[in-house]
Amino acid sequence: MASNLSTSEVEAALVGLPLWAHDASKPAISRSFKFKNFSEAFGFMTRVALAAEARDHHPDWSNSYNKVEISLSTHSAGGVTEKDVSLAAVIDKLAAS
Amino acid sequence: MASNLSTSEVEAALVGLPLWAHDASKPAISRSFKFKNFSEAFGFMTRVALAAEARDHHPDWSNSYNKVEISLSTHSAGGVTEKDVSLAAVIDKLAAS
Repeated sequence: MASNLSTSEVEAALVGLPLWAHDASKPAISRSFKFKNFSEAFGFMTRVALAAEARDHHPDWSNSYNKVEISLSTHSAGGVTEKDVSLAAVIDKLAAS
Repeated sequence: MASNLSTSEVEAALVGLPLWAHDASKPAISRSFKFKNFSEAFGFMTRVALAAEARDHHPDWSNSYNKVEISLSTHSAGGVTEKDVSLAAVIDKLAAS
């Protein structure tokens, strides 16, 4: 099982993922995305869903038209783990492509 | 442009959609869904996304693993309109199928 990262470990990991924010009170890491329209936003979500399902690690997320908010935490560990940092990096690549 | 339904009109419409709740403070209508797993939940979301895009009327929604929360309102009208009631009925059919 993945183990929780400490606050300083999460913050060190986010140096390489500067668009993600760490909310230590949840705890989770989160990022907001904005697209041209719903089609672009949901297309992105579909690619993230496929990547998440392949890793058996899933986001908490919401969508309103062209906006997507993603929050990552490892529910079984009750915190942020390497799984979240790794999925965030994959999501960044999908968002940039 | 679709015009806002009054509270009593929304409540009358929801007689036929008993799993939807009316939050007059937002205002919006909302329903929660629970599936077997993420794959089932996101499969449902994809079908809803296609129906929403075809109607050019989109939900505000969130997903966490097997749970989906959908909120419908007509942003351009600032309230609940026939478009929302109609999309809610379509979503109910997709959830039941």
